[in-house]
Amino acid sequence: MTHFPRKVNICECWARDGLQGEDPFIPTEKKIAIINQMVKIGFKRIEATSFAHPKLIKQFADCLEVLKGIKRLPDVTFIAIIPNDKALDRLLDACDKGYGVQEITAILSASEDHLLANLERTFEEAMPPLADIVQRARHAGIRVCGCIGTAFGCPLTGEVPLEKVVELTDWYLEKGATSIMLGDTTGEANPKQVREVFGQMRQRFPGVDFVAHFHDTRGMGLANTFAALQEGIILHDSSFGGMGGQPATRRPKYHKGFAGNTCTEDMVVMMEEMGIETGLQVEEVIDTALMAEDFCGRRLLGHVTHSGAIRHRSSNPISLKNLRPNGEVPAALLLAGRMKEKLSGGNLVEEIIRKALGKNWVIPDGLIISTDGVAVKGELGGRDILVTRFKVLEIQDGEDQAILEVLSQKANGDVFLEGQTRLLFSR
Amino acid sequence: MTHFPRKVNICECWARDGLQGEDPFIPTEKKIAIINQMVKIGFKRIEATSFAHPKLIKQFADCLEVLKGIKRLPDVTFIAIIPNDKALDRLLDACDKGYGVQEITAILSASEDHLLANLERTFEEAMPPLADIVQRARHAGIRVCGCIGTAFGCPLTGEVPLEKVVELTDWYLEKGATSIMLGDTTGEANPKQVREVFGQMRQRFPGVDFVAHFHDTRGMGLANTFAALQEGIILHDSSFGGMGGQPATRRPKYHKGFAGNTCTEDMVVMMEEMGIETGLQVEEVIDTALMAEDFCGRRLLGHVTHSGAIRHRSSNPISLKNLRPNGEVPAALLLAGRMKEKLSGGNLVEEIIRKALGKNWVIPDGLIISTDGVAVKGELGGRDILVTRFKVLEIQDGEDQAILEVLSQKANGDVFLEGQTRLLFSR
Repeated sequence: MTHFPRKVNICECWARDGLQGEDPFIPTEKKIAIINQMVKIGFKRIEATSFAHPKLIKQFADCLEVLKGIKRLPDVTFIAIIPNDKALDRLLDACDKGYGVQEITAILSASEDHLLANLERTFEEAMPPLADIVQRARHAGIRVCGCIGTAFGCPLTGEVPLEKVVELTDWYLEKGATSIMLGDTTGEANPKQVREVFGQMRQRFPGVDFVAHFHDTRGMGLANTFAALQEGIILHDSSFGGMGGQPATRRPKYHKGFAGNTCTEDMVVMMEEMGIETGLQVEEVIDTALMAEDFCGRRLLGHVTHSGAIRHRSSNPISLKNLRPNGEVPAALLLAGRMKEKLSGGNLVEEIIRKALGKNWVIPDGLIISTDGVAVKGELGGRDILVTRFKVLEIQDGEDQAILEVLSQKANGDVFLEGQTRLLFSR
Repeated sequence: MTHFPRKVNICECWARDGLQGEDPFIPTEKKIAIINQMVKIGFKRIEATSFAHPKLIKQFADCLEVLKGIKRLPDVTFIAIIPNDKALDRLLDACDKGYGVQEITAILSASEDHLLANLERTFEEAMPPLADIVQRARHAGIRVCGCIGTAFGCPLTGEVPLEKVVELTDWYLEKGATSIMLGDTTGEANPKQVREVFGQMRQRFPGVDFVAHFHDTRGMGLANTFAALQEGIILHDSSFGGMGGQPATRRPKYHKGFAGNTCTEDMVVMMEEMGIETGLQVEEVIDTALMAEDFCGRRLLGHVTHSGAIRHRSSNPISLKNLRPNGEVPAALLLAGRMKEKLSGGNLVEEIIRKALGKNWVIPDGLIISTDGVAVKGELGGRDILVTRFKVLEIQDGEDQAILEVLSQKANGDVFLEGQTRLLFSR
C-alpha cells in the first residue's frame, strides 16, 4: 500500500554532507550566507557543519565560526556531525556560549568493512564511545539522529543483512537516539529494496522517526525518494546541486562514484509536483541552488536549476500578486498567423499578448493591456507560429499596474514583436 | 497495487531520439557500429533512425545507409520514425529492397500547442495524413507504435487532460496501431502522476501494449520508470548516456531542458537490481554506453558508466566462468594488520588475497593461490587496513588457471602489495 505523507520535512545537507568532499575551502561567510538563505526560504532542518577534525576534513575547520554566524529561528533545527567525544566537548562548550545545535548526528555503518574504511574502527571499538556520545548529548538536551550508513548495501562487502540494521536501530534507541537515519552512503539502494526496507523497519519500529538519506551515485536518488515517500517517510535528506561525497571514498579507489546526495532542488520539484507539501517555494529553492553553484564555481548536478520548474496553467486570474518582480512568465505558443486575418496593428499586438498571458492564467474582465511600448519587427504569414515570453520588470502596486518585457518569436527564431507592455488591473 | 513485470523489453533510442538533438554529424559507420553492438548484447527493440527530412534534421540524412549497414537478427525489432507520407514511401521502398524496419513510430502530441511547435500542424491538419500512414504501414505488414507526445504535460500549455490521451489512443487503435507510446517529451511527469495515468490507461485499454517514454529534464526519469514498473509496464524507452532532445526545443527558447531521454545504462542497473530481467548484462551495457561517449566525444549523463555497477557478493564459488577477461574484481577491505600478528611473508600475502577474493565469492576447497609474482612494498602496522582490487589478465582454460593483477593499498593510499597472482582451480 502507498501512504504518501501530506507534508515532508527536508533536511538540507549542503553545508555538511555536500561540502565534505569539496576541495577548495568555501569561505565561512559564504557558508553562512547559504545557510541563512535556507532558513529564509523555509528549510526547517539544516545540517550546518561537522566537528570532524580539520586534519581529516579541512572544509570544517570553521565549524564554530559557522555556528556563530548563522541566523537562528525558534522552529529551525540545526544539525552537526559529532564523530567523537572531543568533538562533543567542543559542541557542548558552543552550546553553553549560545551557538550550539539542536541535534547531532551519530555515525555508524551497517557494514563493518565500511566502518573500518570510514572511521578506522570495528563495531567493538566504535560502539562503546558512541553510546557515551549519544547519552551525553541527550543529557545536555540535544536530540540525536542515529545514522546507520551503508544500510542498503556496501561497496566493500556487498549485501548488508537487514538484521544488522534492525540490531543497530535497537541499540541506538536504547541509548536514547531520537530518530534513525538509514543512509545509502554510496548509492547502492534500488527503489524496490527501499520500499521493502522502510516497510519492514516501520512495521518493526512503529513509533520511530526514520530519515531517508540517499546518494545519487547510480542516478536512483529520486526513484528511491519516491519509494520512501510511498512508505510514508517524512524526513528526507538532500543537498543543493546533488553535492556530496564521503571522505572514505577518496581513499584508495574502492569506490569511484561521482554524484553525491540526492539533489535538493530536483527533490523539491518532484515532491511539490506530487502534491506533497515541502513548505518551500520552488523558485526560491532554485535561486538558492544557483547561489550554491556560484559559490562552488561550477555547474552542479541539479536538473531543474537549468530546465526550470514545471509549468502549470493557473486556474486563478492574473493579478499583481502572482507576478513576481524579475520573474519570468513561461512561454506560450500561438498560431498567430490566423489572428492576422482578423486583426491588424495595435489590436493584433494586444491580442497576441492577451492570448499568450491567457495560456498561463485566466484573464479577468477589465484588464487593460497597453501596447505603446511594443515594436512589431516583421511580417506575419498565415502559417506563422509565435512563441511569446514575458519578464516582469516592475510592479506598481499603488497604480495597480505591472510593466512586462515581452518577446514574440517565430518558429525559426525571427523576432516578430518585442518591447514593454503595461497591464492595468481594474480595482 | 504493485505489479512489477518479471521481464521488460527496453527499446534503445540512442540512434534516433538520442542523436536528433546532436549537432556534429555522427559518421554512419559509428551509428552502425553502436546499433550492431546493441544487437550483440541483447537489445530486442532498437530505434534505428528517423526519416525526418535532412533539411530539418541533418543527423538522419544517412537513414537509408544506416538501415542497409546494420546486422539483423530474427528476434530484433528495428524501429524508424516516419513523419509524413513521403518518408513512408522511402521506407516502403527500402523494405522492398530488404533493408526496412519491422515497426514505425507515428507522431502526435496530446497538446496542440506542442503539435504546432513540433510539426507545425493543428490536430485537424495532422490527423488525416497520419491515419493514412498508419493504415499504409499496417497494410505493408509493418507494426505501428502510436506516439502521444506531451502526454504528461506540455511546456507550452501546462496540464494536458487525460481525456485527450484517451481520445488519441482510441483513434490510434482504430487506425490500426499495434502499441501506444505515452511520451513525456519534455520531462513534465512526476512518478505519482505516472502511476495514475498508466493505472487508468491500463484499466481502460486492458489488452494494449503501452510504451513508457520519459525524458530526464527534471531528473525524474528513473523515478517515473519505477512508477511505470509498478503499473506493470513492460516496454520502456531509453537512450545511452541520457542523450536526447526534441527538435522543437531548439526553436525559440520556450523550453531549455538539458537532459534527454532516461539513461539506458542507469535504467538497466535499476531494473536488474530490482530483480527484473532485462535480458542484458550490466557490464556489456556499460561498455556500450562508454562507446557512445567515445563517439560523442564528451562525458554523457549516465551515472553507472562512471560509478560502476552495484557490487554483490556471489553465493557461488569463484571459478574460471565467473572471471571475465579484462574484468575488474571489486575492492575488498581487510583489517590486515591483525593478520600480520599470525602470519608473515608469502603466507600473509596469500591470506590477504584469499580473504579479499572471499569477500566476492565463496572460496572452494582446493583453490591454489600462487603469490610468486606479488611484491610486498611496505610494512603493515597492527591497525592497518587494506583495500584490495583485482583485474583479470588472462584465463588459461586448458590449465584451469587465471592470472590476476592484484593491488593492495592502505587507507592513506600507500601500496602494500602489488603484482600478479595465479589462481589454480582443482578439476
